[in-house]
Amino acid sequence: MLIIGENISVTRSKVSQAIKERDIQPILEMAKAQIDAGAHYIDINIGPATKNGPDIMKWIVTSLQDVVDIPLALDTKNAAAVRAGLEVHRGKAIINSTTGDEDQLNTLMPLAKEFNAAIIGLAMAKSGVSRDASERCEVAYNIITAAQQYGVPMEDLYLDPIVLPVAVAQEHTVETLEALKMFKELTDPAPRTVVGLSNLSQSSPPQLRSIINSTYLVMLMTLGLDAAIANPLETELMNIVKTVQILQNKVLYAHSYVD
Amino acid sequence: MLIIGENISVTRSKVSQAIKERDIQPILEMAKAQIDAGAHYIDINIGPATKNGPDIMKWIVTSLQDVVDIPLALDTKNAAAVRAGLEVHRGKAIINSTTGDEDQLNTLMPLAKEFNAAIIGLAMAKSGVSRDASERCEVAYNIITAAQQYGVPMEDLYLDPIVLPVAVAQEHTVETLEALKMFKELTDPAPRTVVGLSNLSQSSPPQLRSIINSTYLVMLMTLGLDAAIANPLETELMNIVKTVQILQNKVLYAHSYVD
Repeated sequence: MLIIGENISVTRSKVSQAIKERDIQPILEMAKAQIDAGAHYIDINIGPATKNGPDIMKWIVTSLQDVVDIPLALDTKNAAAVRAGLEVHRGKAIINSTTGDEDQLNTLMPLAKEFNAAIIGLAMAKSGVSRDASERCEVAYNIITAAQQYGVPMEDLYLDPIVLPVAVAQEHTVETLEALKMFKELTDPAPRTVVGLSNLSQSSPPQLRSIINSTYLVMLMTLGLDAAIANPLETELMNIVKTVQILQNKVLYAHSYVD
Repeated sequence: MLIIGENISVTRSKVSQAIKERDIQPILEMAKAQIDAGAHYIDINIGPATKNGPDIMKWIVTSLQDVVDIPLALDTKNAAAVRAGLEVHRGKAIINSTTGDEDQLNTLMPLAKEFNAAIIGLAMAKSGVSRDASERCEVAYNIITAAQQYGVPMEDLYLDPIVLPVAVAQEHTVETLEALKMFKELTDPAPRTVVGLSNLSQSSPPQLRSIINSTYLVMLMTLGLDAAIANPLETELMNIVKTVQILQNKVLYAHSYVD
């Protein structure tokens, strides 16, 4: 189970300011905190990055990997910025993300192949959100086909069944679970899967976010989820991930397994 | 999702003393507390009850149901005590429980049929614990066959895939999950299922019991679990049950769904 730490995002003023001032220190501290908390990847969300995208991504990747030995998820809609990040990235990067849109697939799959990177494929219909599990599955199938055409190995593809806020789109929570189950049947061996977890509890009261996110993560892991973009600083969430791994007999039980 | 409150058990000195003194008050209070916390059934565990079993069960069932309007799970190895309880029970009782042992099946299935009661079938091999999911499934199949022979409707049978303490039998946690999945394929519609949850964290440190139990319950519910014998006074556990039901779109989301 991969945890991709989500905290370095340009939507946070601390991060946007650090980028503006080219001050890596706050970003580095956020990366270190997430690594200490158990993150396996650090997401670098620089947003659309229409201005200076390649420069920004190159600067962050280089500056972070100079200090911390962890792979990164390059999170931007700017394909040139993704390329710039991949050119300087050490280890296996994750491209976050492509939809099933043909233009995106034709741009990003070749990058994944060229740089031996993993890539997240969002099961989103062109209209925006897929209506149900079947529509998510159709998109996932197109993404798998594109990966195969471009020679991206299946183990480098992470399909995302799209998690939506339960408070405003409750009917989608089961569709996402069902889509995950269906994705796992699409290929043999089963494709890998990922979700952006925190989106689930957007619009829910703060005191509910933890129980909603962690309960859903257990449900998704039970159905075979391989990775989650989440906040590793949520201790309870990370303890629950460990607990699932113990109950799946993937990690050896010890009385001290929770710190 | 049925919650069968487990707290009234002769293994507790409070209960054994109340039984000895034929003082229903402490037992009644325990029942009320569990009902207030959301239990749908109250388990009445009087142990082997080799002495006065029928009298004890009849007394508890009558005294409780005089005051509280809730069905009970009659939990004893003494078949005469089960019969005595069924004779006075109002509503649909649960017989807790039969194994796959032929003598037990031939005694208890007719009782379930005669009194229109539900019955829990433990997927335990004769030797004690089943080795793996397949062995659990063989026993479950025998229990289903017996239920059909005696005319017990499938919706009155709850198959138990047997939860063992993760601290001493970690390899069984996945076998139990796998068994649950296999049970669900045995008949169409799928048979109902139940677990005795608290056994999972027996032998684990007190501070771990809640996270272990509740995480596993989410995993089991994701795979279609229908009922759990558990402690409804564990607020966190009950909140997580509600959360799963919301994420399965079975209960309508509201910002106030957790008290």
